[in-house]
Amino acid sequence: MAKGASISGFPEWLPSERVVEQKVIDTVREVFELNGFIGIETRAVETGASLLKKGETSKEIYLLSRLQEVGAENDTPVADRLGLHFDLTVPLSRYVVENSGSLTFPFKRWQIQKVWRGERPQEGRFREFVQADIDVVGNGDLPAHYEVELPLVMVSALERLRPLGLPQATVHANNRRLSEGFYRALGLTDVEGVLREIDKLDKIGAAEVLALLVAECGATEDQARGCLDLASLTATDGDGLRSGFEALCARYGIESGTAEHGMALEGLDALAMVVDGAARIRPGSVVADLKIARGLDYYTGSVYETFLDGAEQLGSICSGGRYDNLASQGARRYPGVGLSIGLSRLVSYMLHTAGAHASRISPAAVMVAVWDESSRDASNAIAQTLRSRGIAADVSPKASKLGKQIHYADRLGIPYVWFPAAAAADGGDRDEVRDIVTGDQREADVTSWCPDTVVARQTITLER
Amino acid sequence: MAKGASISGFPEWLPSERVVEQKVIDTVREVFELNGFIGIETRAVETGASLLKKGETSKEIYLLSRLQEVGAENDTPVADRLGLHFDLTVPLSRYVVENSGSLTFPFKRWQIQKVWRGERPQEGRFREFVQADIDVVGNGDLPAHYEVELPLVMVSALERLRPLGLPQATVHANNRRLSEGFYRALGLTDVEGVLREIDKLDKIGAAEVLALLVAECGATEDQARGCLDLASLTATDGDGLRSGFEALCARYGIESGTAEHGMALEGLDALAMVVDGAARIRPGSVVADLKIARGLDYYTGSVYETFLDGAEQLGSICSGGRYDNLASQGARRYPGVGLSIGLSRLVSYMLHTAGAHASRISPAAVMVAVWDESSRDASNAIAQTLRSRGIAADVSPKASKLGKQIHYADRLGIPYVWFPAAAAADGGDRDEVRDIVTGDQREADVTSWCPDTVVARQTITLER
Repeated sequence: MAKGASISGFPEWLPSERVVEQKVIDTVREVFELNGFIGIETRAVETGASLLKKGETSKEIYLLSRLQEVGAENDTPVADRLGLHFDLTVPLSRYVVENSGSLTFPFKRWQIQKVWRGERPQEGRFREFVQADIDVVGNGDLPAHYEVELPLVMVSALERLRPLGLPQATVHANNRRLSEGFYRALGLTDVEGVLREIDKLDKIGAAEVLALLVAECGATEDQARGCLDLASLTATDGDGLRSGFEALCARYGIESGTAEHGMALEGLDALAMVVDGAARIRPGSVVADLKIARGLDYYTGSVYETFLDGAEQLGSICSGGRYDNLASQGARRYPGVGLSIGLSRLVSYMLHTAGAHASRISPAAVMVAVWDESSRDASNAIAQTLRSRGIAADVSPKASKLGKQIHYADRLGIPYVWFPAAAAADGGDRDEVRDIVTGDQREADVTSWCPDTVVARQTITLER
Repeated sequence: MAKGASISGFPEWLPSERVVEQKVIDTVREVFELNGFIGIETRAVETGASLLKKGETSKEIYLLSRLQEVGAENDTPVADRLGLHFDLTVPLSRYVVENSGSLTFPFKRWQIQKVWRGERPQEGRFREFVQADIDVVGNGDLPAHYEVELPLVMVSALERLRPLGLPQATVHANNRRLSEGFYRALGLTDVEGVLREIDKLDKIGAAEVLALLVAECGATEDQARGCLDLASLTATDGDGLRSGFEALCARYGIESGTAEHGMALEGLDALAMVVDGAARIRPGSVVADLKIARGLDYYTGSVYETFLDGAEQLGSICSGGRYDNLASQGARRYPGVGLSIGLSRLVSYMLHTAGAHASRISPAAVMVAVWDESSRDASNAIAQTLRSRGIAADVSPKASKLGKQIHYADRLGIPYVWFPAAAAADGGDRDEVRDIVTGDQREADVTSWCPDTVVARQTITLER
């Protein structure tokens, strides 16, 4: 990481690292567009009122004030002040409502932007990071098949990042109605409270969560154990999910036919559809995992988290869910489903754990040497011809000794050095080009020469 | 513009408009990379101390405060608070100093990011906008040829935007030392003050600037007239520039041999080099225009502004210059030269004046129809095969009547609709694809069919 990470939580990459991040961004964008998602960008700021409406991250907002207002910030209520967005879902909801008349629904959009969270700095937590989101938002209603398809788009995007050092990813899905119905059938009413505690399972373990459910959510020990038993259910198909759930209901004396059990079954059916639907297209990519709770409280149906094989310590690298009530305008609702990749954390893993590195720092495939400053125009003209043919070219900064010029190219990883004819090293009258790795040097024509296709572009390789 | 521009000065584009902005960003990035510039991204925030160091925009900074700190913001001095960057040059200087040990110099970098200025909202002024920058920064010294080459890279990037509705661009160059030497030779000492007033010429006219020079900068009327006469000098080559300047010196009794005249001549030589050097490579692209002053006071040599033929009312759309003292570490200096395109304003012009619009909103070239929800898997499989061949594909949101499905594709501008075989409209057993503009429909094989190359990708066209 750049030493420039001199403000804690605000990462910056060195140029060679940025090549990897840029490649990740370009790759996921390409997958999103192949799938017909439409790119938008929203402003970085929202009103305090909009940011504070939903979700527990409301406490982590950065508010803005103009320098001229310093000292008078608090004359304006927080709701009317501007703050930086902490995700891309809240801005999307606002954008959809404001522009509903101009959009075609269902509106499939991708968005890759920075978000900011004013958290206390702690290890591995970024205060500024890049998110890569896809969402589908309906006008009034939204077909359930998107709850199967969207996690699969993310899986195919993550699959494309495997050559950059990303381990295999598995989406873990749950359904809020399944959890809520079961909790209520157990006799619990503080559903949000229970979800909040269950969300801490990976961090603090079952014993502590049990204690919290009793202390904070009014659960008996038996009810709390029921919540934990539900959270321990996993399944790779709908049948397994169903039988596991039935066994649990039997154990806790939950009878069918009640409204609570009906709600749970609704969620169960939706979750079975997600897991079975995904298995038909990409077996093993999505599993049912009933401990998935999600911190944000705007989710109403499917919820997703994604873990990397052998890198579970990273936590979920791609999360989301279905939200039916986030956006509305009068009686009109805009239900949506979406997932978000926490891209900066992924890039950090690729760079520092998987050893991803750029084949070169410079995008240039060739550096044109300069024999003396009076012939710089000739070198520039050669570079310009190469560029017009789509070959990225740099020109030596100085007409210094040849060794120094080659050293500059070498430090940037530029694979070829071009020697203009007039004063070529051997006094020849044709241009020559040298492969500075092999040392191979041969005559070349600027209107037809092409770099080896393998080295023509920056690529990412893994250290072994 | 999206109605979502509901916060004054924070523009947002509709999806069709975003296609144009994205194309502009992709195009200038491609040109920057073809020229061997290295992409970096810096964090959005800097310390107040860093932001307040230079430049008159210091008054337009947005400061941040965490929500938890509301009410206690002023316990922290402004210098220690965080603020959003107002340009990409100040962050670059900081990045270069912090990472100097890891960079190869001269460091050629491109950077396309949002910047924020907390200005009072006024017509056409954005508070959040995208800048596209290139800079070259040296370690200790920086060859002068970059002062010729960088404006030309920008000209070639702007040239590539002509098909998107951008008029021809001309770079107007000046040199700070030329102006300063001349002002001092006239007997003026408040050089920054004079530059600040001269910078207002286009806005308020010569008469008012003359009055301000007298009132604010301690100039006599004759001295002020000298400054205005210098500002009215333009030339398309070094010889013309020299003779114009000599005539001016004669008129104001400025003799050669003095330190002030020497400084002016230094600047004159540098400016002549820029104009003549550019003319050899791209005639007419760079002219000498001695009224160019630039608001930011970190420039020390060449300064540039860029105007569009017939759209001068936009002001400069690409500005910059050489700065020798912005970045330093102990005795070590990092001189740089760079230019910045104000990209959001350009996009606004293309959309609203030039009539640029996207050939379609969706990146998808084809939409696969769905005969009934039970056969959605088959439609998804077809789309997946097309995507694996690099053809962007969407799938109909619902198995509604065919007319409704085609209407969805049509609204998004998707040019082809794919009919899966099993239940093709005519009961046939082969897939068919329809061009929904011509109505032409024919059998197609998902493993070999290709869209017409003209409509395979989103393109930008101009309304006539």
